[in-house]
Amino acid sequence: MDLSVYRNFLAELAYASGKFLKPYFARGLANDLSALAVEHKADQSPVTEADRDAEALLRQKIKTQFPAHGIIGEEHGTERDGADFVWVLDPIDGTKSFISGVPLWGTLIALLHNGAPILGAIHQPTLGQLLIGDGQSAELNGRRVRTRTTTTLAEATLLTSDTVNLDARMGAARASALLGRARIARTWGDCYGYLLVATGQADAMLDPIMNPWDIAALVPIIRGAGGVISDWTGGAAHRADTTVAAATAELHATLLTALS
Amino acid sequence: MDLSVYRNFLAELAYASGKFLKPYFARGLANDLSALAVEHKADQSPVTEADRDAEALLRQKIKTQFPAHGIIGEEHGTERDGADFVWVLDPIDGTKSFISGVPLWGTLIALLHNGAPILGAIHQPTLGQLLIGDGQSAELNGRRVRTRTTTTLAEATLLTSDTVNLDARMGAARASALLGRARIARTWGDCYGYLLVATGQADAMLDPIMNPWDIAALVPIIRGAGGVISDWTGGAAHRADTTVAAATAELHATLLTALS
Repeated sequence: MDLSVYRNFLAELAYASGKFLKPYFARGLANDLSALAVEHKADQSPVTEADRDAEALLRQKIKTQFPAHGIIGEEHGTERDGADFVWVLDPIDGTKSFISGVPLWGTLIALLHNGAPILGAIHQPTLGQLLIGDGQSAELNGRRVRTRTTTTLAEATLLTSDTVNLDARMGAARASALLGRARIARTWGDCYGYLLVATGQADAMLDPIMNPWDIAALVPIIRGAGGVISDWTGGAAHRADTTVAAATAELHATLLTALS
Repeated sequence: MDLSVYRNFLAELAYASGKFLKPYFARGLANDLSALAVEHKADQSPVTEADRDAEALLRQKIKTQFPAHGIIGEEHGTERDGADFVWVLDPIDGTKSFISGVPLWGTLIALLHNGAPILGAIHQPTLGQLLIGDGQSAELNGRRVRTRTTTTLAEATLLTSDTVNLDARMGAARASALLGRARIARTWGDCYGYLLVATGQADAMLDPIMNPWDIAALVPIIRGAGGVISDWTGGAAHRADTTVAAATAELHATLLTALS
């Protein structure tokens, strides 16, 4: 299948989202905090007007360009998810970073074909980074990237989005012991942690809580960069509610053992 | 004492450091990882050529402008630290972020008078943020900033540079329980965590391991923004090896109790 039309459109969506969101975040960086007014959803997760409006903008572009395609989005729901091609949207993955002046958020966009993710993008517009993967390769601003060759936790930079969630899932003692085995352990999440793994700047990323719109884009990116991604049992990452991504198969296997 | 001459020179030093460091970090963001080659010091902490060269640049400027002043720096040691005025330098606070493509590092510069920090700067050049405090006020790019009014942990964004260090100091169960009481808990360190507290984007920051060159700049910034900063026993923050900074006295008191 020639993906170039879809790949170009994916980049167009990512840039449109970034162009829309970057000024909001810039106002926060300059301490104009009114730009980042937050509502809390039923599950207490924060959402901003910027998030909702960016998703609406992307949906409109998809409907114009590919009216038969389906759409799954965090803020505005699901349309035609039985279609051959379905776009998966999360304009602000890492809302807690976005509202806190921390540029570790990004726009996630994926394209599913017959339910499987075949293209993914992570875009961090403040830092000017667009990472696209297709399962075979991954490119940051058009430059090929690869995961590191790290095979042991002792050499690894190990990331997770939220240690409180990790503790709740694993127990504080086990979670602490696991993070303590790494050279560096940090909560450099959410999608930005996977960008760091794919670009060879970190070695592994764990998340105990994932949603479909969080995961789909990550799979073709991590695999395209040469890494391994699955759920915590070693099963398919896509549609699971946990994720572990690693630079190498050896490191991934070590983490699966620690998480099981 | 009229601090305007020193304040202007502090900003000049911060901009000079940022101008020097920003291109190194930009090469990392663009996946030119050779720009961030790392050596490990005796204590296994990483250091880069950029860090050493930036400190040498700042030292030369100080010696030219104020030859009688003392200098304390992380990479090139102490000179004339008995002088009335002593500059305290850490060009890259957050080296692990710097080498990992994460813009949560910054340049820290402080001026001590008779041993007490009277001026402090945190500069994050990639994001274009220069925060200066003098104990009475704090300004981000010339705009007055203030801490939030948060008084309870349940409403707070609570930060620490490294949960592994927190676990080692407090025990994993206690550390996990403390972080679990906050609305958001993250390792958005090192100096950037204090910038977030001072600018009203987070509520508290804990560090169980501090060095003199890490702390001095933070004291006039946090106090100038209306926050409270001390060591973990409530004693003077400067020259201590632990730090707790909070948006309000009530939140600071709650954290001291939890840490005691």
